[in-house]
Amino acid sequence: MKKSFGARTLIFPTPTWVVGTYDKNGKPNVMTIAWGGICCSKPPCIAISLRKATYTYGNIIERKAFTVNVPSEKYVKEADYFGIVSGHDTDKFSKSKLTPIKGEFVDAPYVKEFPMNLECRVIQTVEIGLHTQFIGEIIDVKADESVLGKNGLPDIEKVKPFLYCPEVRNYQKIGEYLEEAFSIGRKL
Amino acid sequence: MKKSFGARTLIFPTPTWVVGTYDKNGKPNVMTIAWGGICCSKPPCIAISLRKATYTYGNIIERKAFTVNVPSEKYVKEADYFGIVSGHDTDKFSKSKLTPIKGEFVDAPYVKEFPMNLECRVIQTVEIGLHTQFIGEIIDVKADESVLGKNGLPDIEKVKPFLYCPEVRNYQKIGEYLEEAFSIGRKL
Repeated sequence: MKKSFGARTLIFPTPTWVVGTYDKNGKPNVMTIAWGGICCSKPPCIAISLRKATYTYGNIIERKAFTVNVPSEKYVKEADYFGIVSGHDTDKFSKSKLTPIKGEFVDAPYVKEFPMNLECRVIQTVEIGLHTQFIGEIIDVKADESVLGKNGLPDIEKVKPFLYCPEVRNYQKIGEYLEEAFSIGRKL
Repeated sequence: MKKSFGARTLIFPTPTWVVGTYDKNGKPNVMTIAWGGICCSKPPCIAISLRKATYTYGNIIERKAFTVNVPSEKYVKEADYFGIVSGHDTDKFSKSKLTPIKGEFVDAPYVKEFPMNLECRVIQTVEIGLHTQFIGEIIDVKADESVLGKNGLPDIEKVKPFLYCPEVRNYQKIGEYLEEAFSIGRKL
C-alpha cells in the first residue's frame, strides 16, 4: 500500500554540499545546501537553490560566482554548522578553523580541507518561489590526490561524501559499490 | 595536493531517479536520470534535466507532467536498463515487467514497485545547453507503507535508494546513519 504525504520536499537521496562565496568586502563565506544537482552536461553546469534571505544569495548576486565543496563525513560537524549560522554575523571560516583558498578561475573561495571543489560561474538565475536557483557553469573540478582511485578519478569511498535526508533531518553515510552503470541493465 | 580535472560534471553524490511520463498516445514510459535535485521549498519543486533527443522530453512537452520514482537497490538492473534504451522504440514497462499506475493528481504514470513516487506538474522550462531543465511542482509524495520509519516518514535504510557516480559510471549503495542535522553543528 502507498501512503500519500502531500506536497512536500521529500525524496532520497539529496546531497550535502557547501557553497563558497565572497561578500562585497572580500570576506569568504560558506553555506550548506541540499537543494541542488547537476543540470547540464554541455556546458557542464550545476544548479543550487538559495533563499534570498541568506548571506550567500547576496554574495552570488554581487560576484556572479560560487564554489561547490563536498565535505567528507569527518567534517559533518562543520558542514552542519555552516547550515545553522549566517554569514551576516559570523565568520564561519574562522570559527571552524577551515581554510578558504581563492578560486583559480572564479571570484569565489573553496574549502581546502574538503576533498572535492567545483569552481562555478553563474550563467542563469531562475526565480522559483521561496528559493532562487543559480545555474553555475562548472569551470574546474578539483580533488585531493589522496581521494583518487585506480582510474585516476575521485573514488566515492575515499571522498566519503554524505547525504541529507529531507524532513527526517539527518545525515547518512554512503555505502558500498552496487553495480556498473550502462552495463547491468543489458542483462534484462 | 589538489588535482584539477577541468570543466566536467564530476561531483558526488548524484541520485538515481526514474522519470515517468505518458506519450501522446498514452503509452507509459520511464527514463533514468542523475541530473536533478530539489530546487525550491515553497512551492515544493524538483528539477530534472533531459536532452531534447529523449522520448521523455517530448512527453513532458506534451503532457506538462512527470513523476520521479526512487528505485530500491534490488531494482538496479531495471533502473540501469531504463537509462540505456529509448522509449522511441521500446515499451520499457512491458520489458521490465514493472507496473505503471496512473498518477492521482498529474497526467503521468508512476512505478508501483518503486518505494517512493513524486507526482509533479511542470511550472518552468529552462534552456541551458545540451540539457533542458524542467522544474516540476511536487503535487504529492507517495511511499510504500513498508518503508516507513518510527516517525511515520520514509526511512532511507528501508527505501534503499542508490547513487550514481558521474564519470566513474557506477552505482553506489547508501550507508548507515551519520548524525542528526541542525544539531551536531551546535557543538562547534
